[in-house]
Amino acid sequence: MSLGYLSRNMRVLAAQLNPTIGDIEGNTRLVLDALERAREIDADIVVFPELTLLGYPPGDLLLDASFIKALQQKLSVIAPMTKGLMAIVGLPRVNESGIEKPLFNSAAIFQDGKLIGFYDKQLLPTYDVFDERRYFQPGDKISIVKHMGKNVAVTICEDLWQHSGTVGYTNYRIDPVAALQEQEVDLVVNLSASPYCRHKKTQRIQALASSARAVQAPLVLCNQVGANDQLVFDGHSFYLDAQGKLVCMAKGFVQDELFVDLAVRPEPLSMPEEGIEDVYRAIVLGIRDYFEKQGHRKAVLGLSGGIDSAVVACLAAEAIGAKNILALSLPSRFSSDASYTDAEILAERLGVVFKKISIEPMFEAALSTLKPLFAKRPWDVTEENLQARIRGQILMAMTNKFGGLLLTTGNKSEMAMGYMTIYGDMCGALAPLSDVTKTNVYHLARHINREQEIIPQAILQKMPTPELKANESYLDTLPPYEVLDPIIEDYIEKRLSPEEIAEKRKHNLDFVQDLVVRMHRAEFKRRQAPIGIRVTQKAFSKGRYVPVVQRWRGLKG
Amino acid sequence: MSLGYLSRNMRVLAAQLNPTIGDIEGNTRLVLDALERAREIDADIVVFPELTLLGYPPGDLLLDASFIKALQQKLSVIAPMTKGLMAIVGLPRVNESGIEKPLFNSAAIFQDGKLIGFYDKQLLPTYDVFDERRYFQPGDKISIVKHMGKNVAVTICEDLWQHSGTVGYTNYRIDPVAALQEQEVDLVVNLSASPYCRHKKTQRIQALASSARAVQAPLVLCNQVGANDQLVFDGHSFYLDAQGKLVCMAKGFVQDELFVDLAVRPEPLSMPEEGIEDVYRAIVLGIRDYFEKQGHRKAVLGLSGGIDSAVVACLAAEAIGAKNILALSLPSRFSSDASYTDAEILAERLGVVFKKISIEPMFEAALSTLKPLFAKRPWDVTEENLQARIRGQILMAMTNKFGGLLLTTGNKSEMAMGYMTIYGDMCGALAPLSDVTKTNVYHLARHINREQEIIPQAILQKMPTPELKANESYLDTLPPYEVLDPIIEDYIEKRLSPEEIAEKRKHNLDFVQDLVVRMHRAEFKRRQAPIGIRVTQKAFSKGRYVPVVQRWRGLKG
Repeated sequence: MSLGYLSRNMRVLAAQLNPTIGDIEGNTRLVLDALERAREIDADIVVFPELTLLGYPPGDLLLDASFIKALQQKLSVIAPMTKGLMAIVGLPRVNESGIEKPLFNSAAIFQDGKLIGFYDKQLLPTYDVFDERRYFQPGDKISIVKHMGKNVAVTICEDLWQHSGTVGYTNYRIDPVAALQEQEVDLVVNLSASPYCRHKKTQRIQALASSARAVQAPLVLCNQVGANDQLVFDGHSFYLDAQGKLVCMAKGFVQDELFVDLAVRPEPLSMPEEGIEDVYRAIVLGIRDYFEKQGHRKAVLGLSGGIDSAVVACLAAEAIGAKNILALSLPSRFSSDASYTDAEILAERLGVVFKKISIEPMFEAALSTLKPLFAKRPWDVTEENLQARIRGQILMAMTNKFGGLLLTTGNKSEMAMGYMTIYGDMCGALAPLSDVTKTNVYHLARHINREQEIIPQAILQKMPTPELKANESYLDTLPPYEVLDPIIEDYIEKRLSPEEIAEKRKHNLDFVQDLVVRMHRAEFKRRQAPIGIRVTQKAFSKGRYVPVVQRWRGLKG
Repeated sequence: MSLGYLSRNMRVLAAQLNPTIGDIEGNTRLVLDALERAREIDADIVVFPELTLLGYPPGDLLLDASFIKALQQKLSVIAPMTKGLMAIVGLPRVNESGIEKPLFNSAAIFQDGKLIGFYDKQLLPTYDVFDERRYFQPGDKISIVKHMGKNVAVTICEDLWQHSGTVGYTNYRIDPVAALQEQEVDLVVNLSASPYCRHKKTQRIQALASSARAVQAPLVLCNQVGANDQLVFDGHSFYLDAQGKLVCMAKGFVQDELFVDLAVRPEPLSMPEEGIEDVYRAIVLGIRDYFEKQGHRKAVLGLSGGIDSAVVACLAAEAIGAKNILALSLPSRFSSDASYTDAEILAERLGVVFKKISIEPMFEAALSTLKPLFAKRPWDVTEENLQARIRGQILMAMTNKFGGLLLTTGNKSEMAMGYMTIYGDMCGALAPLSDVTKTNVYHLARHINREQEIIPQAILQKMPTPELKANESYLDTLPPYEVLDPIIEDYIEKRLSPEEIAEKRKHNLDFVQDLVVRMHRAEFKRRQAPIGIRVTQKAFSKGRYVPVVQRWRGLKG
């Protein structure tokens, strides 16, 4: 169809929104605001993220008939606001055929005030953090819409990935890019909800560039931004030319818009960098959205003087503001004065509220209560756990009395090895570092200190210790982190076998096997862990489903 | 092929095994033992449960290449042990085509000492507790094997369910039963891993009876038995005649064998009863396997004198033996003497070790430690949570010092409403009642007392109270359980909207909406809950994926 202004080139707005899952009213408002904005800046096409009106991933909310119905009702609210525009909005659509699954992962296509049709996502990721086959039936045809005399192909996220051969654990039978290659296409738009993990930004651009080249058409991808539980969506919506060159990109980790005039051809951008800065920003967004989307403002955390809690304090201060943070020093007989001093310096520099409470009276009370039951058994991990749990008790009491959420400070290396106390230091609503190995916690600390020292140098330099018994070092229990962390990455993220790891890292096989057995044994603790923010390819949270009661230990025979 | 003894009728053994997930060696041994047994009793065909060598559900173990390889290696161990037999053993098979998913959910078919082929499951459940599309590619053809001159159709679990139209949230495009209808079939065998929930046994027989009738062939189903994390597989393998009549059935909730001579036609069995007895046995098996499969022998629990912990103590005593149970009474200033006495009587009757420890010194220490921080704020839920957490602390300390696992005593009504303390009474490895509403906890208690009073009558008669403050009743916070529980079932299990529930139950809509909002708000606690044993269609555990950060509250507009 012609809208009568074919004389000028097409201008595309990618509305990189941060929806809240299940907030149909709020998400619809975001869409209406973006349509308003599109008219202000004289855009011709507006592209939204995947499942715009729900937020991604909505999980089992999709199974509520009333939820689906409430979503459908927004179509007639949005339609009149698309006068003079083409707009593509993501939401589920009922599969009227009744065959296989009851819903499609769909995109409503509006043109000049009318809903003109739907496009149903054809490739449904069902691996890693994705479970779309649980809910959706794949669509079976491409969709090309004529707008201002141009052929606009509408696609959704995974649809454009098969072509590059970079899909996880799946090799789709069909390839929508191949189907598009056989058509006249002037522009490909893609509604995405592509979550962040390390190197994902580069991967995403490369995968889609291969599709743009194949179709020989420019491509605008609109990605969701924002964090939903464990997943952080980084945004970074982009525009590729027909040669697959990156022309422009929206900001990462914030709501933004990408406004593209298809006629204008600036110099291609160089590939963006992917460093620790992105990990930092992903976690900050993960914390901020976890709080804001639930209406929480205040956080509590234990500030021990160690590196993990120091980094969490910095991340939280950035995410929700230092004045909203209460940091507690909770020393015992085993805590060093230096730990307290280091924590105090950091708290002052950050400007967080800092208080000190000795856990000794509670620890004493616990020891004497348990004494008759323990019947002279020697000191062991029980007494260490008691201390960690008393700290958890105090921290939780502060959130109960004054509101706010407790942040857990443990890291991925500990989570892997079970080097943490369940109901103790594992207490908390959110674990910002649970997908960050100790090695990377140090990287984050140095990144935080890159311009000026915020985390005291002493914290970076001291040997990590839980301070739960006298003269303790983590090396009493674990190998050095520079040895351990690569093994964790190999086993958890890369799924190498102990044999392959021993070979690759030049370790004794028994040494690697022992660590792998310990990783498996800690599964029961991870099952009850707080939500952790995913920043690697495989976090101990969403996207990893390992039974607790099972005997496979990664070992042959 | 002919094995030379066509003169007699075919005899089928269904080996209803209890595999441990990931225990390839152990599960292979179970298979070899069953083959040995088959020869002893002169069986002709041996049918095993679905994914026999792995245990079901194996989850992401399937993603380990070394795991798949270790499984494949068992084929050549099993083959020679099938001399003179046909045997069908479940395990994954690599999808050599490379299209879509890398594995099939398969069954290896052995005949007279040789592996003669595979059958790949065609219908892959991906809803509720099932996620087979995450790992597997559907097979695309039926498999009929000639054995002793008869046509034996090999099928796997879900394959036979589509025909009855009782599949969850899916209406498969293909129906293997329809394909079998077009063939000469003398016997259908089905390898199953069909988990227990209420009414499932009857449903399963009815669904498969409709398939047997359609194919006009007798049917032998071999179901897995045993508990794996949240799921309990009830066994109840059965034999249906060609009219779909139930002829015989293996025992429920124990390893068993079903031995069928196809020539013998006894009177059809009447449909088995489904009552609270099955719930009881499911939970007992859930506890037993959780302990045994991990090599744990001892359990700890808090015995408060209330109905929940009383029932858990009885279930645990049945599951792992009373002598392995340590029950602790943990009174505070708010605990009544009657609570202690009732708990003591029960402990004596059961024969569990029973000890009493006052939480007062630890509670006092906590109150005085926190006093300067609480700055004269009034008593609130904080102080109640402190008591629950001190109890959790003591119970965990006992498991740490003496070994064993802590059992959590909370029920489904509390889990739904958030009427429990995270890191307090929610502490524990396993929550036997977390899928049992308070109403059904009473049913279980009466069932336990059906022959003689084990749980003191006083426990059944008293008004439930957490005893965390003076003169407390659960009615201060919740509606009566006879009102609340049906609403929980309607919203969680039946997915009715608040409007539909208000209409159905003749409640004020605001009243129902308030409860639904509270159910949603408690999601963050459930996320960190111990493993609960599933006994209903929808438990708060595996099979229910609701985001924590989300704003849908089941309400329109």
